[in-house]
Amino acid sequence: MSILVVGTVAFDTVETPFGRADRILGGSATYAALAARHLGVPVLLSAVVGADFPEAHIEALRARGVDTEGLVRDPDGETFFWAGRYHYDLNTRDTLATHLNVLATFRPDLPAAYRRPAVVCLGNLDPTIQLDVIRQTSNDGHRPLVIADTMNFWIEQMRDALLETLAHVDVLLVNDSEARELAGVPNLVAAARRIRSMGPQTVIIKKGEHGALLFCGDDVFSAPAYPLEDVTDPTGAGDTFLGGFAGHLVRSGATDPRTLDPSVYRQAVVTGSVLASCVVEAFGPAKLLDLPPAEVVARMEAFRRLSVVPEPVTVA
Amino acid sequence: MSILVVGTVAFDTVETPFGRADRILGGSATYAALAARHLGVPVLLSAVVGADFPEAHIEALRARGVDTEGLVRDPDGETFFWAGRYHYDLNTRDTLATHLNVLATFRPDLPAAYRRPAVVCLGNLDPTIQLDVIRQTSNDGHRPLVIADTMNFWIEQMRDALLETLAHVDVLLVNDSEARELAGVPNLVAAARRIRSMGPQTVIIKKGEHGALLFCGDDVFSAPAYPLEDVTDPTGAGDTFLGGFAGHLVRSGATDPRTLDPSVYRQAVVTGSVLASCVVEAFGPAKLLDLPPAEVVARMEAFRRLSVVPEPVTVA
Repeated sequence: MSILVVGTVAFDTVETPFGRADRILGGSATYAALAARHLGVPVLLSAVVGADFPEAHIEALRARGVDTEGLVRDPDGETFFWAGRYHYDLNTRDTLATHLNVLATFRPDLPAAYRRPAVVCLGNLDPTIQLDVIRQTSNDGHRPLVIADTMNFWIEQMRDALLETLAHVDVLLVNDSEARELAGVPNLVAAARRIRSMGPQTVIIKKGEHGALLFCGDDVFSAPAYPLEDVTDPTGAGDTFLGGFAGHLVRSGATDPRTLDPSVYRQAVVTGSVLASCVVEAFGPAKLLDLPPAEVVARMEAFRRLSVVPEPVTVA
Repeated sequence: MSILVVGTVAFDTVETPFGRADRILGGSATYAALAARHLGVPVLLSAVVGADFPEAHIEALRARGVDTEGLVRDPDGETFFWAGRYHYDLNTRDTLATHLNVLATFRPDLPAAYRRPAVVCLGNLDPTIQLDVIRQTSNDGHRPLVIADTMNFWIEQMRDALLETLAHVDVLLVNDSEARELAGVPNLVAAARRIRSMGPQTVIIKKGEHGALLFCGDDVFSAPAYPLEDVTDPTGAGDTFLGGFAGHLVRSGATDPRTLDPSVYRQAVVTGSVLASCVVEAFGPAKLLDLPPAEVVARMEAFRRLSVVPEPVTVA
């Protein structure tokens, strides 16, 4: 069982109050693919880069076991570039530059070996491209579990296309402000309910430093964020969450949308949260490229302890 | 073992996008005292009201077992009045009016029976009054566990007095923006560490709809907020948390600041969170005045399930 990750592979320039990194490896698919590999499952990458993208970055992904057959190089353009500056509290950021470059004309045409994945992870992309990928991977009775991310830009600019795509999505990941905007209600519980009526059986609302809420079947799970004292670079935390979440589902064999097991989904949220808490400790995906399993295991255990309520509490 | 609650007893006028309530019973001490009574422990109330305060409200507190010997009536003035309007998402509010009235000159002079409580709960008040109450209750070798709330007004306007008081506080409750402002750092883990260096051994950072963080000894506990779909009036949630938290400590006999048991503190945070999640479902303290124990027990159990991680998660 494999995971297909579709998203961006990019150059990022990141400024925080504490440092800066120029034109480092970035992109939603980079983070999600590397995170999923930490679960030891096959990962297929579909994305585009330009003539300027160094072979060494591709080699780094391959060395971590990411299948890059679907990573297309467009020789006529430059790689997608994003630059952003984080505010003092690292909870908000300004986008300083978004150069789509080769991404502007990219339409994935999946290799034959990519067309029957167990899970499709759709990074934040034009919803019409997301839907096209769902169609390319749904064939001969095969239907993958579809996990998608989106953002305010698509909610505001392409709402109809997004709604059409959402009808084919099993798990939607959004942050809290996007959930409110997509649903049109301020309360997050009500927002999750409305979003689930649009298609996704499962909704995960990411709240940054406040953790995440999982709505899955009748189950509601509130996952804390791991309380870090030194966050270096929040870029890619959501994509890392996506990859870790998907990786856990595949590793657990829980990829049939008709037989939801909320326990496995809770574990998958914790896995995504833990990997995200690791990645923000360095600029770019550096930690994902070099993260000892023992460190992940230790943080997983610390994460579990974080929200344990010691024993039934009684009231008069 | 009793809890002394010092704070305000007030008239509140509350507007939300969904309704309005005029001159209802309010005040930090009202919420905290009623919440603590749900733990079945003795509660002593110290506050002031004016000539206009109806005897029926006092009778309602007494009927719930609150000792009102320390509730002073100042015949020369009107009761403290607060009016506020909540924004669409209920996370922020504008204060429309604050009439201190009799509160402006109130200096608690505790009855003899109030001077040896096991726990002192200091609602958000002038820090010099908070310190005076600590002094009145520390005598003949007796030293209560001191739990205090504060707010941005005192942090900004009376920082030196607040710091002097904090040196005598065992548990400080603040919201996330207040924690950042008091500590002067944006990261909440770092902020909690700095605040603990100011005196309080234990710091609880309240994050509204995102739950609370408890820093107690070496333990860090992340408590979710109970995900409510219909919040009617957030007023008093923090004070209810304070009373429920203190009530659980007294009920558990865990009031010696020298022998901190993080497990009991975790339970106390859950107790406070659960009672706070109940109170916001109606305007004012109505739910606290009429809350069946079975409802609290059921929510306590639902709250516990909210953040359970099913079993150790493994990573490749």
